[in-house]
Formats: sequence, C-alpha cells, structure tokens
Amino acid sequence: MPLSSHEQQEIEDLRAVQTSTRRLTVPDLEAILYQALPVLDHGFVRVIDYMGSDSAVVQAARVSYGAGTKRARQDAGLIRYLMRHAHTTPFEMCDIKYHVKLPIFVARQWIRHRTASVNEYSARYSILDNEFYIPEPEHLAAQSTSNRQGRGDVVSGDEAARVFDLLRTDAEQAYAHYEEMLNEDVQGNVRDESRQGLARELARMNLSLNFYTQWYWKVNLHNLLHFLWLRSDAHAQYEIRAYATVMLDTVRRWAPLTYAAFMDYRVGGANLSARGLDVVRRRLRGEPVTRRDVGMSPAEWRELNDLLAADDTSDSSQLPLLPY
Amino acid sequence: MPLSSHEQQEIEDLRAVQTSTRRLTVPDLEAILYQALPVLDHGFVRVIDYMGSDSAVVQAARVSYGAGTKRARQDAGLIRYLMRHAHTTPFEMCDIKYHVKLPIFVARQWIRHRTASVNEYSARYSILDNEFYIPEPEHLAAQSTSNRQGRGDVVSGDEAARVFDLLRTDAEQAYAHYEEMLNEDVQGNVRDESRQGLARELARMNLSLNFYTQWYWKVNLHNLLHFLWLRSDAHAQYEIRAYATVMLDTVRRWAPLTYAAFMDYRVGGANLSARGLDVVRRRLRGEPVTRRDVGMSPAEWRELNDLLAADDTSDSSQLPLLPY
Amino acid sequence: MPLSSHEQQEIEDLRAVQTSTRRLTVPDLEAILYQALPVLDHGFVRVIDYMGSDSAVVQAARVSYGAGTKRARQDAGLIRYLMRHAHTTPFEMCDIKYHVKLPIFVARQWIRHRTASVNEYSARYSILDNEFYIPEPEHLAAQSTSNRQGRGDVVSGDEAARVFDLLRTDAEQAYAHYEEMLNEDVQGNVRDESRQGLARELARMNLSLNFYTQWYWKVNLHNLLHFLWLRSDAHAQYEIRAYATVMLDTVRRWAPLTYAAFMDYRVGGANLSARGLDVVRRRLRGEPVTRRDVGMSPAEWRELNDLLAADDTSDSSQLPLLPY
Amino acid sequence: MPLSSHEQQEIEDLRAVQTSTRRLTVPDLEAILYQALPVLDHGFVRVIDYMGSDSAVVQAARVSYGAGTKRARQDAGLIRYLMRHAHTTPFEMCDIKYHVKLPIFVARQWIRHRTASVNEYSARYSILDNEFYIPEPEHLAAQSTSNRQGRGDVVSGDEAARVFDLLRTDAEQAYAHYEEMLNEDVQGNVRDESRQGLARELARMNLSLNFYTQWYWKVNLHNLLHFLWLRSDAHAQYEIRAYATVMLDTVRRWAPLTYAAFMDYRVGGANLSARGLDVVRRRLRGEPVTRRDVGMSPAEWRELNDLLAADDTSDSSQLPLLPY
Repeated sequence: MPLSSHEQQEIEDLRAVQTSTRRLTVPDLEAILYQALPVLDHGFVRVIDYMGSDSAVVQAARVSYGAGTKRARQDAGLIRYLMRHAHTTPFEMCDIKYHVKLPIFVARQWIRHRTASVNEYSARYSILDNEFYIPEPEHLAAQSTSNRQGRGDVVSGDEAARVFDLLRTDAEQAYAHYEEMLNEDVQGNVRDESRQGLARELARMNLSLNFYTQWYWKVNLHNLLHFLWLRSDAHAQYEIRAYATVMLDTVRRWAPLTYAAFMDYRVGGANLSARGLDVVRRRLRGEPVTRRDVGMSPAEWRELNDLLAADDTSDSSQLPLLPY
Repeated sequence: MPLSSHEQQEIEDLRAVQTSTRRLTVPDLEAILYQALPVLDHGFVRVIDYMGSDSAVVQAARVSYGAGTKRARQDAGLIRYLMRHAHTTPFEMCDIKYHVKLPIFVARQWIRHRTASVNEYSARYSILDNEFYIPEPEHLAAQSTSNRQGRGDVVSGDEAARVFDLLRTDAEQAYAHYEEMLNEDVQGNVRDESRQGLARELARMNLSLNFYTQWYWKVNLHNLLHFLWLRSDAHAQYEIRAYATVMLDTVRRWAPLTYAAFMDYRVGGANLSARGLDVVRRRLRGEPVTRRDVGMSPAEWRELNDLLAADDTSDSSQLPLLPY
Repeated sequence: MPLSSHEQQEIEDLRAVQTSTRRLTVPDLEAILYQALPVLDHGFVRVIDYMGSDSAVVQAARVSYGAGTKRARQDAGLIRYLMRHAHTTPFEMCDIKYHVKLPIFVARQWIRHRTASVNEYSARYSILDNEFYIPEPEHLAAQSTSNRQGRGDVVSGDEAARVFDLLRTDAEQAYAHYEEMLNEDVQGNVRDESRQGLARELARMNLSLNFYTQWYWKVNLHNLLHFLWLRSDAHAQYEIRAYATVMLDTVRRWAPLTYAAFMDYRVGGANLSARGLDVVRRRLRGEPVTRRDVGMSPAEWRELNDLLAADDTSDSSQLPLLPY
Repeated sequence: MPLSSHEQQEIEDLRAVQTSTRRLTVPDLEAILYQALPVLDHGFVRVIDYMGSDSAVVQAARVSYGAGTKRARQDAGLIRYLMRHAHTTPFEMCDIKYHVKLPIFVARQWIRHRTASVNEYSARYSILDNEFYIPEPEHLAAQSTSNRQGRGDVVSGDEAARVFDLLRTDAEQAYAHYEEMLNEDVQGNVRDESRQGLARELARMNLSLNFYTQWYWKVNLHNLLHFLWLRSDAHAQYEIRAYATVMLDTVRRWAPLTYAAFMDYRVGGANLSARGLDVVRRRLRGEPVTRRDVGMSPAEWRELNDLLAADDTSDSSQLPLLPY
C-alpha cells in the first residue's frame, strides 16, 4: 500500500466531512473522492475535486438559465452529436482535479499534455521518498523487433533476474548516495556535522527516472478525454496506460453519457483517410481494389486491412448501452 | 430587470436544491449561486459553479494528502508569498464558471483573453433578443483630447439627446429589419408565406455591436485575476470594467485571502522599471535626480511622479486586514 | 479592389526588397508574400511572414543537427505517418502570419480558435472604414428547413431585392451616424466645434456586424490545419469558408507534403465510430445489418450510409500524387 | 566540445547555404544561426530559425499594410510603451526556434512553461548518449541554511571530492547497466544473442536525472521573455539560469529594442505592492513608517528595504542606451 498511516488518516478525515451545496453533485464520483486508487507498485490516482458532469455539458451547449437538461434520451443524443461533430467546447465546462503519484519517466510523458494545470512536489524544496518503480514480471518486455518504438515478448529466466537485480540495486545505491550527499537529519539519518551537505536541488540529480514523484493535476473534460485517448491506446507505453485505465474509470463514474460517447467515437472508432474510404466504398460495391489502386504504402495498407478485418472483440454489443 | 419570469423561475428552481458533498464548499459564494447580478442596462453575471477556494491553493502548493491548510495565519502568509513571487500555478487549481449577458462590443474585448472556456449563444442557430445597450447619461463620454484611446468629459445637453436618439433609433430599426428578413413565426411575428426568410447566420449581420449576447465562461483563478487586473483598471473601457467590478466581488466571496493578496500586490501595486527604482533610491538618499539623469521619456517621467506623489487614497489602511 | 493606392504602394515597396538569409525559404510562398488575396467583397488575406516548411517538420521529428531531411519519399512517408498517428507536435514547428480583412461577424467565429496570436485594428483608438459586407446574390441563402444551423435555397426576386436594400441602407445609415457622433475632421468631414464628439470606443457600437475589421493573425501549422479542417468544412458558414479556401491554398504553396497528407487524412477522410466500424466489417463479410443491430440513431445511421455510398467524386485518383 | 565532427559538419553545411527572401531578416542573429552555443559541460543552445524582430512588433501593433516602422525613436518609444502597459500581444508576433541539449532535471523545470512547442529526442525510440552533467567545483553548492529552496556556500575539500566521485561513479554505472540491459549492437557493444534485450522504453528508467536529453523548442517572443524573466532570476536554479543567460543574449541580437525595454521594465524593475508604495510615498514625504504601520510580514519588510537600499550596481547608467 503506497500510503503511510498518517496520510491514510488525512484522507479519511477529508472523506468524513459532508457539507451542503447548491452545486451539481455526482454521487458515483463522491463515493471514491480522495481515495488512493492504486497504480503500478507504489503509485496512485486520487480524485480531489470536480466541477460539472454530463448535465453541465448540456447546460453549456444550450447556454441555459437553468439546468439545461431535458429528457435523458435527448441529453444523450445531444452529447453524442457534440462528440461526433467535434463540438468540443461544452466538454471544457467540466473540470476534475487529481493527485497522482507516478514514476518520473511517466511524469515526463504525461507533462507533454500542456492543457492542464500542475503542481509537482518540489525536490528543490523537499526530499524525495525512497520509492522507485520495478515492473511486474509480466511487464518486463523485450524491445520489439518489428517496431522501433514498442515492446516485444516478455523477458524471463536468468535475463529477467539480472534485470531486476540491476534495476533494484542501482536505485537503492542511488538513493543511499542521495541521502549521503544531502547529509540531513531525516528518516533516521544522523547529520555528520563535519560536512555541509549538498543542496537538495543538486543532490536529486543522482536519482534515476524510476523514482516516484507526485503532483496535483487539473484538467477539463475535453482535454482529459484527449489525454486518455492517446494514453490508453495500445501504442502508449504500458506504464502510463496503467494510469489512463484507472482514470478512464473515474470518467465513467463522473460523466457516464460522455464516457459512452467517447468509447464509441474515439476509443472504439477509427479515422479513415480519403484513400481508406475509397477502398471501403469500392469493396462494398463488390469491386476489387489493390494497394496500388489507391496509392497506399505497404504499412498503411496493412493497418487498413487489419482494421477492417478485426473480429467481433470490439463489436457494438460490447459498447455501453444507449438510453434509446 | 434582464430576466423573464420563466428564466427567473428556472434560477429559483436551481437554488432550491441542496445536496450533500464531500468537496470543499464556500458558503459565501453559494449564497449568490445562480443569481443574476445586474450589470449595465440589460446585462448580468451569474456564478454557475466553482471548484476550490483559498484552501485548494494551499493544498496544491503543498501537494498534500489532506486539506493542506494549517493555521489561517500561515495560509494567508503562503498565499501572499505565492502572489508576491509569481508562483502562479497553485491559483490555477481553482475554477469558476459564469453565465454572462453582455453587449457584443464588450464580448469582443473579453474574448481576447484566450485562457478560458466559452460557449456562446449561437445566432446561427437561434434568434437574438431585442436588447441593446444604451449608456447611462453619466457614461456618455466624449473622446479624450489627451489620450487617443480614452474618454474625456461627459457629453450632455442637445448633443447627448441627439446621440441617445441615434443609438436607440438605429438599433430599433436594425432589429425590426432583422425580424423582417428572418420572416419567422416568433415573438408575435407572423411569417409571410410568400417569402422564404433569410438564413439566421446572414440576417444577424444587420444587428449593431451594442446588441446583447450571452455565454458561459469558465476560467481558473489565476487567469481570472489576470483578466480582472487588466479589465478593472482605469484604462479599460467603462463597459467591460462594469463587469470586472461585479466579478471582483465574486472573487472576494470565493477566495478572500487570495482576493486580499491580489488587491495588495496587483490592483493597488505598481511595477517600477530599473530607471524608476533608480529614481526612488536616489531620492530616498536625498539626492536630486532629473528626467535626463535616468533617460526617461516625458510621459514616463510624468507617470512615475504621479505614482509616487499619489495621496493617501490608496494607503495601506484601506487594504483588507491581514490575519497577522 | 480593397486597397487604396497608398496601401498598394506600401505592399509593392515591401515586395521589392530581397535580402539574403541562412534560413529555410519557400519560393512558392515568397511569390505571393505580402500580396492581398481577395476574399468576399472587400476582404483579403495577406501572408506577411512564415517560418519553416515540410522539412522543418521532418527536422523536428528527427531532432536533427542538420536539415533532417532524407530522400523526398522518406520525408513524405514520415509526414504521412505523423499525420496518421496524431503525432502533432512536429507540425507546431512551422508558423505563418497573416494580415486579414474580414467582416466582424466572421471575426467573431474566427477568434474562437484560441491557439493563435492576434492584433486587431482598434476601434477604441482609430476610426473604422466605411466598408461593409453585402453577399453576392448566389450566397443570399434562406434558412435551411432541415437543419436549424444552416442554409437552404437561394433567396431571389423581390425578396432578395428587399434584403439587399435593407442591408445596404441600414449599414450606410449606421456609418453616417457613427461619423456624426464622432464629429471629427476625417475623410472629408468637418468638425462641428459646438459639439464635443462621442468617444470612439462608444460610437463604434452603432456599427453593424457586417462592417469590416482587420487583424494580424499568427498561428502554427498544426493549429492552422485544425482551423482549416473545421472552417473549410461544408458545415461552416460560407463567409468564413471563403477565407479558409484561400488560406488552404497558401498551405499548399508553403508545405506541399503536409498539405497532401492533410487532404487525405483530414479533409477527405472520416471518423468511423465503433458502431460504424462494426457495420462496415459486417457488410464486408456479407452479413446484413440493421440500424437497431448497432443501436444508432436515425440521423447517425443516415450520415453513415451517405458516407459509405458516396460516389467517386472523392475517390483516390483526385488526391494529390504521392512521391511513391 | 559537445558535438561530434559529423554533427559539426551538418551545422557547417546548413550555415553555408544562403538564399534570397522577401521576409524580414536580422543579420545579427543570422551570424550565429545553427551554431552550438555551449552551456554547462555538455549542453548547448542553437538558434534554428526565427520570424520577425522589433519591426514586426511595431507592424502588428499598428496593423499596418507595409513595414509599419517609423523613425527609430518612435519605434523604440512604442515598444517601451507596449512593455510598460502590458500590451503583450504584439510581442507574440515574433517566433524563435531553438535546439537545446540539457540535463533531464533542467528539462523537467523548463517544460513547466507550457506556451511553447517541443519535440524531444525519444528514449523510447532511440538510445541516449553517455553524457551526464557534473557541476563545476564553484557550483557545487551546499543547501542554504536560510532558504529551504536555495543554495548556500560552495562545498569543497574532501566533501566535494566525495560528491564528485559519487555522482560520476553512479552515472557511469547506471549507463553501463543501461547498455547491458539493452543488449544492442551499438557504440562498440556486441549483442549477446542468448539474451533478448530489454525494451528501450524500460531500460532508460535506470538513467539518472543528470543525463542529457535534447529537444527542439519553439516559442514566441512574449512567452520567451516571460520564461527568461523567471529563469534568469537569482532565485532560479543555477543550471537553468545558465541556459537563460545564453538565450537572453540571442534576444539582444534578435530584437534589440525589445531587449532594452525588457531589461529596464522586467529584469531590472520590481513590483511594489500597495503597502510597499505606501512606504515609499511616506518616506519621500519625510514621514517615519514602521513595519506595523503597513502590516507587512518581517520577510516582506526585509525584502522591501533590501530593494530600496540597493546600491548603484543596478543604476540606470548600466541600462542599454535609448535612441532618444
């Protein structure tokens, strides 16, 4: 469990307080508010606050004086229409704030999404904890042989044992030296008065990229969905995908109609190029069509055929039910 | 009064509902939630939703597991420190959403602030109301003779009467022709079946810039303060300043410690250039210093002297009280 | 012609100067640099400056020390790969700056794209010209009867004559009263010394939304393509589409490989939802599939079938040629 | 020297090409275009491209048809006016693109500035070089005893020797293990065919935060100045300040009038709070004023007095000369 008993108590204290509000509330999300949802070996995602929900999307789209919602069926239809036609601004009217604990190399990918607000734990000001990420054996992947930017089979046996040993030993040594250079009275260490101790902002450079950091991250629903679309994708690195998966479930609790439309149009959907559309139309008319007919590269032709031939694992019956 | 009884009822219905939440709430802001705060002759500002408050700023700055707040005095000191040293990210952790009704020429200035989310009432899709802005007599200003971008004395007498007449008559005629071109069965008009009626997206071009539009506008606390700093300034056009003034008071209700720091460091403060600082230091040492000594332009020299000679109208005793 | 001879001369003076640079240059774009490309009755688009081109996209994607480009075929393939997989950041490495003259109601749509830099001609500081937009007869559309946000047939005959008369007369009157209220010695007007003259920032509110304004607008290639994708679409209002069409052609000159990929993947492509993909896959397997099988709304079902049945007008043979 | 001879040659090849352009050019910046300006032990800043200069700021502020510039004195005055009154949009009309090589811990601070475009060298796709940052002896600072986020005296003697040894040894070991886990035929290593080799995206996590990465970074002049204002400040960490210092000099070459105004109003200037202004005004009137009179905290009172008592090291005579 990633939290100390003190931290756990702080969370319980927050959860125990219920107050009254005139604002829109979402009981399904309140149910998990402040809780640490575990990710990877020491990480977590915590929902700290939120503003709006599906009905705020509807309210903004209608620029209404009141709640803006009509019958559930109409609201679902409007949300699907907005998502289908890239009318994205109403989804910006909802915000969510997370507290996230994550390895630094994941944080480096994450921060590339610029349309969010971030406050990160400062290693100039404070001392980082001795926590680093070690993959589960099933995620210790070899370099892909077909794709320069991807993973292949799982590394196992002696090679895996050696990798685990290197990762763990190097991280432990890096942290021990970090503490030695800092020379501070913390975490059971006794300061050596004959040494000044290195500035925290310098000592931290000895830590490796699998050490954990944490931040508050606030984002609107539109930008969150864009983040999740990219980071829950099979091409995203497994470690950030693990976070996206947990966060996707918080969206399901928070704004279920938006979630359903997103799963249908973005996660489960696909973009066809003009050439790809041409292929589909010709085939539906029963015409033969070759790669050269439409001027596609071999890779693109393969991607298209994989997409069109995919079996029922992503069929409509697995999509969230619609209210109509 | 800018609202119809139907709209007023929708607002009352929203206000009547109180639910329970684990989130941070701000009773002073809840007290006015959804209400239409009047601005100009037909405009308003309504607070629709909010997320966070002073303690969310503190919580994010400390990247805390719990509420993050300590004693009020420490929280106030931290917020002042953040404001003083341009540590702006914790203020981004709070959001507020407004529903605003405003003249189009004000909307055109307002929208230049890009770091907000907007949903505007669509005149492609809907028909605008017959409401336009006419200034109060005391705001009917002449062109400034000293400043190409500003107002001078109030226009009065026959000239004022003529201006009011032109503004009102032209707007009424523009709206009557808008309705005629639309040729729709709305607002008591009967459609002339011999005419097709012009597309709404075209007919609207006949309306003048003083007609009212409305939008939902969501912004974080940092960007809101930047907007208010610029738009509540004496150099801002009176009409947008009227909105900023009302919104500034919603900030006072929402995040009083942040409001107090903002009034001290931004609204009441001033930026001195290196040359300006040099002048102040020399004078404090009792040295004479001339405009040429520091290489200032006449305008800048005058601005500096006005700033330093300002009397007690902005002295510290009028600032919000500090908790220490 | 929208330009005065003085303005035309300023443009010619700029065009006459050629200097030497180590930067990447694009002769096809230099050929039209500074020229006013006409749009609507009084508007224009001028390319004022640019930075980068296709090879800057490639250079950034490869984080290279040199030009980054390899054989044309590889560069085209890389750009298509980036576009296909939503790797958008390399396209942000190119910038273009336009000077645009456009009706205010078009400017109001345009400005909703927040990821650009804008300097607009100030009607607080200066006096607007007496130029307003009147549609060509073939663009005087009626309200659509099937789509609340769209145009139907062309309005003609007496109704058209009446609309043109109203638009023109109201705009002329609005401008005459604007000048009267201003009471300034400009454009042949003689100031009436018995009147103060209304502040410019107030007098402008009498002008209607079809008056022209102008601005400098700078945007990166990625955000420009997003703008053009939305605003060159058949659902966009004709008047802003007219600008998008002209600007799309400047992209073709500026970055032809990016342009070709954009036309294929965005403009000519389409997004299929999970349900839509399911329909396509089943049909390609020869299975019958109904609207209810996949839980689509009637509107969405119709859109999908229209898309899949579209004839050859958008077939691959009309796409830009690929270098492989 | 941070560059290989191959890389150096690529740079020379780029520099050798001169073409003709109608665009605004800046010879002082062209003089260093593409060159690697060294920073820290292995880092650099390279200017790759630029768009605009002082006269583009002026041109945009005036929304002109031609160059927009008038006499140098007027242009300088306009730029100073824009800077003094926070009219920031004309400065957005200029862009600059850098190629930067920097330690990862510096990159992590840098990337917090979100209003720029970035393409970073991918350690998922490629293998990082064996280059890591070791401070110069004079920058090996101890933790500040007065400021939790800052540096104190220089660490020297045995303690310094030990720190250098730890930093160097740990980084070398981390890299050796990185290569071992990768198990690839690169940089003289021979792949062990009995092992699969760990995915690059995983192996990189063993590297420490002082390893170098590199990116293309493009930003407009306004946002660049904001970055430089924060990062060239004495409170910024020395290592990122080293980059800011070099970049500040590229701004001096690129847009000298803007640079001069920036040095005067931002870098050399200071913000006084309402309370601070009150203190200054009272003292200039010869009145005694105490900390309690204005309700300042001890820290703020000390900061203010330090500011006002600063000696001539920042006096006006050291500012860039003005053209009037």
